[in-house]
Amino acid sequence: MLEELKRRVLQANLQLVKNKLVLFTWGNVSEIDRASGLIVIKPSGVSYDDMRAEDMVVVDLNGRVVEGDLRPSSDTPTHIEFYKAFGNIGGVTHTHSTFATAWAQAGRDIPFYGTTHADYFYGDIPCARSLTQEEIEGEYEKNTGLVIIERFHESGLDPMEVPGVLIKSHGVFAFGKDGDNSVYNATVIEEVAKMAFLTEQLNPDAPRADQFMMEKHYLRKHGKNAYYGQKK
Amino acid sequence: MLEELKRRVLQANLQLVKNKLVLFTWGNVSEIDRASGLIVIKPSGVSYDDMRAEDMVVVDLNGRVVEGDLRPSSDTPTHIEFYKAFGNIGGVTHTHSTFATAWAQAGRDIPFYGTTHADYFYGDIPCARSLTQEEIEGEYEKNTGLVIIERFHESGLDPMEVPGVLIKSHGVFAFGKDGDNSVYNATVIEEVAKMAFLTEQLNPDAPRADQFMMEKHYLRKHGKNAYYGQKK
Amino acid sequence: MLEELKRRVLQANLQLVKNKLVLFTWGNVSEIDRASGLIVIKPSGVSYDDMRAEDMVVVDLNGRVVEGDLRPSSDTPTHIEFYKAFGNIGGVTHTHSTFATAWAQAGRDIPFYGTTHADYFYGDIPCARSLTQEEIEGEYEKNTGLVIIERFHESGLDPMEVPGVLIKSHGVFAFGKDGDNSVYNATVIEEVAKMAFLTEQLNPDAPRADQFMMEKHYLRKHGKNAYYGQKK
Amino acid sequence: MLEELKRRVLQANLQLVKNKLVLFTWGNVSEIDRASGLIVIKPSGVSYDDMRAEDMVVVDLNGRVVEGDLRPSSDTPTHIEFYKAFGNIGGVTHTHSTFATAWAQAGRDIPFYGTTHADYFYGDIPCARSLTQEEIEGEYEKNTGLVIIERFHESGLDPMEVPGVLIKSHGVFAFGKDGDNSVYNATVIEEVAKMAFLTEQLNPDAPRADQFMMEKHYLRKHGKNAYYGQKK
Repeated sequence: MLEELKRRVLQANLQLVKNKLVLFTWGNVSEIDRASGLIVIKPSGVSYDDMRAEDMVVVDLNGRVVEGDLRPSSDTPTHIEFYKAFGNIGGVTHTHSTFATAWAQAGRDIPFYGTTHADYFYGDIPCARSLTQEEIEGEYEKNTGLVIIERFHESGLDPMEVPGVLIKSHGVFAFGKDGDNSVYNATVIEEVAKMAFLTEQLNPDAPRADQFMMEKHYLRKHGKNAYYGQKK
Repeated sequence: MLEELKRRVLQANLQLVKNKLVLFTWGNVSEIDRASGLIVIKPSGVSYDDMRAEDMVVVDLNGRVVEGDLRPSSDTPTHIEFYKAFGNIGGVTHTHSTFATAWAQAGRDIPFYGTTHADYFYGDIPCARSLTQEEIEGEYEKNTGLVIIERFHESGLDPMEVPGVLIKSHGVFAFGKDGDNSVYNATVIEEVAKMAFLTEQLNPDAPRADQFMMEKHYLRKHGKNAYYGQKK
Repeated sequence: MLEELKRRVLQANLQLVKNKLVLFTWGNVSEIDRASGLIVIKPSGVSYDDMRAEDMVVVDLNGRVVEGDLRPSSDTPTHIEFYKAFGNIGGVTHTHSTFATAWAQAGRDIPFYGTTHADYFYGDIPCARSLTQEEIEGEYEKNTGLVIIERFHESGLDPMEVPGVLIKSHGVFAFGKDGDNSVYNATVIEEVAKMAFLTEQLNPDAPRADQFMMEKHYLRKHGKNAYYGQKK
Repeated sequence: MLEELKRRVLQANLQLVKNKLVLFTWGNVSEIDRASGLIVIKPSGVSYDDMRAEDMVVVDLNGRVVEGDLRPSSDTPTHIEFYKAFGNIGGVTHTHSTFATAWAQAGRDIPFYGTTHADYFYGDIPCARSLTQEEIEGEYEKNTGLVIIERFHESGLDPMEVPGVLIKSHGVFAFGKDGDNSVYNATVIEEVAKMAFLTEQLNPDAPRADQFMMEKHYLRKHGKNAYYGQKK
């Protein structure tokens, strides 16, 4: 079942390695089939060198394994909360990519410093708060999702307009219309995180770029009058 | 038409990837045929992996597509302004290369700190001002070119002596005698941007190098008595 | 003798190169066969390009070469002290990996800033003190081991819970259940060292992550109720 | 003539590229045949991709081209001064490697912070002063050599014990017993420059390592009782 989706999720996971976003097994990608409500996700702790499409695990929105011989990623409950809360996303990526994780460890939103950022993110990339002791000792991975969703709701963010987030002292989650697109956005986050780091080192008082530049760049790629790229 | 030029522009665009100046489709190279006034440029938003010479787009100096099935780069109006204002350039490269873009986001000229810089740039690498709201909401890409040209005129710079520029909160444009040479200069800018970043971290009071060292290094490569390299 | 172990130790040493932890010959891996008390270690100063399994040197816990035509790594006496003091380790790696060595040169423990760290290290990664003049001029390599062991004892650390250490003004030693696992941990140290460096640059007042997060992350991978990865 | 030496010098120059010490043509290696007093050096401004052993240029200690169709490196007069002043060196490398050049641009000696440094350099890596206007406008490349030699004499340094040097606002020269060994030392300088940069960022008050550690590490590799590596 979902053979084509498994193949796509495998490819998206391998793209994580190609884009240098993961060491060892430190990342995972999932994609949802909205028609059936089934999610395909990477198995837990399996080397990228050895993974095959048939190793991908199928789970439902209650976290039950529907198909697959291997355990799904330990982060599966986090992915599920995202798919339940955000009806417009189709894929989720988790990484510990180096520069973005440093921002998460510093507990800071990544400020909008330029057009590279605005081409993909409509505003700062948020850093969600730490989990409390109760949240960590309870359903940890599920609560990780809930804390991130709380931040999106509090800040009035749309996960397809701000398709990524940091979580304090941990790492990165990125969203997309499908698994591959969420890896793309995770790649953008790492590059933007590096550029923003360097920007502050060069000018500790660097201001955010202008709001009207944000509008222009985001909308020329993503608005209804977008004119970047080829006509579909 | 212009088959040889399309092949060269394709190769120059692929060199951007090889020199690690672009992620995804974040860059473009063009070259002008001065005899006909026609420009060959990369298509917009097409993956470097898939591009062929026949995908290159031919536009005239009014921005009309003369040949090609694909849309030209969205930055085409910027390139055109450069070709109109700077009669001595033959190629233009645009990138968001990491260190140079950080300088752009910091809103700073890259100071002349050493001979690596002086071998290619006669003076600091300028950072042009941000565009105003009117300039951004109007003909944005054309205005990007005009703001850069304004800086060259105000500072009395020759784009073949200072073959590159940053634009605030955005990225890099580099010039050259042809497309390939503009990629070469974009590569130098990224390396010089990294060295200058590190220099300031090591010594926040690092002074610019001496003017007479600039003269010597620039002229031994580019002056009429140049003695670097082989006789042509 | 120990042909399979030699092959494994060779592979672990080559993994050092693949994981970009060594320049030239600046690193070594050993593994012990606890049944016989024999250690297999890389020969001293031999290029990784040329090494073969049969070049690996077999030494006993008194440092006597039991088999092999080449001299063992000059760091062999350090490895031996670890195997004697830490009965639960099976492999040792030594590197001068860039970021971790910078922390060693700065004379600082690497603080626990996030889950990447906690997934492998239960607490800060310690930096052992400098050796005294007497310790350096005496049995230097043996004393290097003793100074590190002193730090583990003073701080009440278990080398399988904190499977790595810096030594001031020098570099890194990592431990593991076997040689390959010690290389894995050395790789984690380098990545965590880089992330912690960037974290402090972004936020000089970054606090350590919460102790209960440490417990959760360490134990979900290493505790008796671990649920990361596949069932063995 | 000197065919074997030309082959070796070509290989040493290509090693510069492999070790990521040069962009484009920004580096050169030479080696001297002391018996004949002839030097083999890279041609000026020729791409590493195209170079062949027969392109190497043979010059004498007066700078006269003895064999070769191409111009020798524009830095040839600097190399010659080194061979004349330092009778114990056999090879010279020049690079603009990134981190080392940043130290040169910062105008700072690279402090001895640890054993990676001490394994190859007996003390700080010096940064020679800027050339005066007269020195630059006169025989510039020759004077570059003389200013470096002045620093070695003033500081009482032996170029085989401190086999490399920075020159302010410029780059790196490294020495060795032959061309290949000078490339090795240039590679060490770049890595040590990076580690020292990071060390100061992590601890602005980091002290130099102890002098007795320097003695130990330098001498276990280079002293008459050296015990690192294999017996020759």
